Formats: sequence, C-alpha cells, structure tokens
Amino acid sequence: MSGIILKPIGFISSPFKRLEEIPPQSTHAKDKTAIIEIMEEYKEGLKDLDNYSHIIVQFYFHKSKDYDLMTTTPWSKEKKGVFATRSPRRPNPVGVTIVKLKSIDGCKLEIQGVDMLDQTPVLDIKPYVASLNPVIE
Amino acid sequence: MSGIILKPIGFISSPFKRLEEIPPQSTHAKDKTAIIEIMEEYKEGLKDLDNYSHIIVQFYFHKSKDYDLMTTTPWSKEKKGVFATRSPRRPNPVGVTIVKLKSIDGCKLEIQGVDMLDQTPVLDIKPYVASLNPVIE
Repeated sequence: MSGIILKPIGFISSPFKRLEEIPPQSTHAKDKTAIIEIMEEYKEGLKDLDNYSHIIVQFYFHKSKDYDLMTTTPWSKEKKGVFATRSPRRPNPVGVTIVKLKSIDGCKLEIQGVDMLDQTPVLDIKPYVASLNPVIE
Repeated sequence: MSGIILKPIGFISSPFKRLEEIPPQSTHAKDKTAIIEIMEEYKEGLKDLDNYSHIIVQFYFHKSKDYDLMTTTPWSKEKKGVFATRSPRRPNPVGVTIVKLKSIDGCKLEIQGVDMLDQTPVLDIKPYVASLNPVIE
C-alpha cells in the first residue's frame, strides 16, 4: 500500500508557541482556550456541531520530524514502547484530543482544554459523545 | 502546506467484510473481537501497552473515496454537517475508536468492541486513560 495523503482542514491558534510550554495532558490545561480556524471550503461541514459540548480533534504533530519506538514520558525515566505513550515522536505523528467547544463563529471554533502547539494542522473534527465511550470496569 | 503523508503501521482483521455489516458505533459491537496485526518493524513500540485495558485506535477509512460536507446518519433523514457526524465520507477519511485490549501476542493485538472494516489500515495506537477524558457537566 502506498502512502496515505491527508490535507489540513484548518489550523489551531493556541497560546503554546513552543513545545516546552505544552502541558503533558489537556486536562492539565483545562482553562486554556484556543481557536481552530477551518478553511472556508469546509465551513458547511461545521453545521450542527454546536449541538455538542465537546469535540474530538485529530491533528498532526507538525514539529515532530522522526520517531522512537522506545521513549520516556514526563512521569518516569523508564523507557516505554511509543504506542503505550502519547509522545509526538511516533511512526505517524498524529494526535487526538477531546476539548470543550465553547462557540462557533463562522469558520472559527473557540475551544477550551488545549494541549496543541500554535499553528498545529487539524485533520478532522468529530462530535464527542460520552455515552459512546466504554465504561472501564 | 503540502500534503501530510502517513503509512499504515498495521492492519485490522475484522469480522466485517462489507461496509453494510458494520454497526453504527463500536458500543453496539461490544462482543465482536478482531485482530490488529502491527508490522514487525514497529513491534518494539508495543512494549508496556499491555498495562492498559483499553486503547485508542486511529485508522484510515480505506474504502471511502470522496466526501460530503452535508450527510445523513443512520439515526435521521435530516442532513448534518459532516464534522457533526462520524461518517467515513470526510475530507480526511480518518477514524478513531476506543476498544478493549484483550491480549497481545507478538505483533498481534486481540481487541474487542470493533467497528472497523476488515483490512482497515491502522495509523496509530495510544493508551486510553479514562481519567484523562473530560467530565461532561
């Protein structure tokens, strides 16, 4: 199979201008807000999204240039398999996060609970429905 | 920005051979199991993943050839903006699901709660930690 080619549907304007400023998890940045600006050509696809309080954002780690199969996390010096972490240095540098959707104004989504770098390319947005998540026994 | 090129890290062997067989949400397929087979070159990255009961799987809707900005869902005849749905016909045909991780045997992950088509390319795997998800007020 040849490569899968994706295109940003928009970009994030976030308060985090440098990698070092990003909190390890979005729940640690609960009060940080940011704007996702969707390209005009995709604007119609945002219709009805304002029915949801939270959204799932899939994005591209645009500053991540390579990957490590074993990596450390902010919580331990022990190396772990990359798929057991949320490190941006992954074979496919894609991330996913759930954020609060505060408002939509045209192509601009105001979101809260941000852990993405400024100018992060957004690949997809989906509604987040808590009841569809598994209950962990 | 030019296109973002991703490569499958593995493929899913699922009981769903045709699109019509797929349940609308993974929670409706709670008892269906499947295998994710990761390519040998990424095997080391699976280390420590068996500490988690559930994983987040990002995947490529490989049978989705185009997109609609307005689309219907299985629950309503009314058209909705595609980003307010989980339709595979999206500008970037990427999906994300949370599944139960039953076991890991070498490069093979046995998972439960599957809503992906057989031979779906897997883009990424991450641990699912329920406490990192937002609590919806």
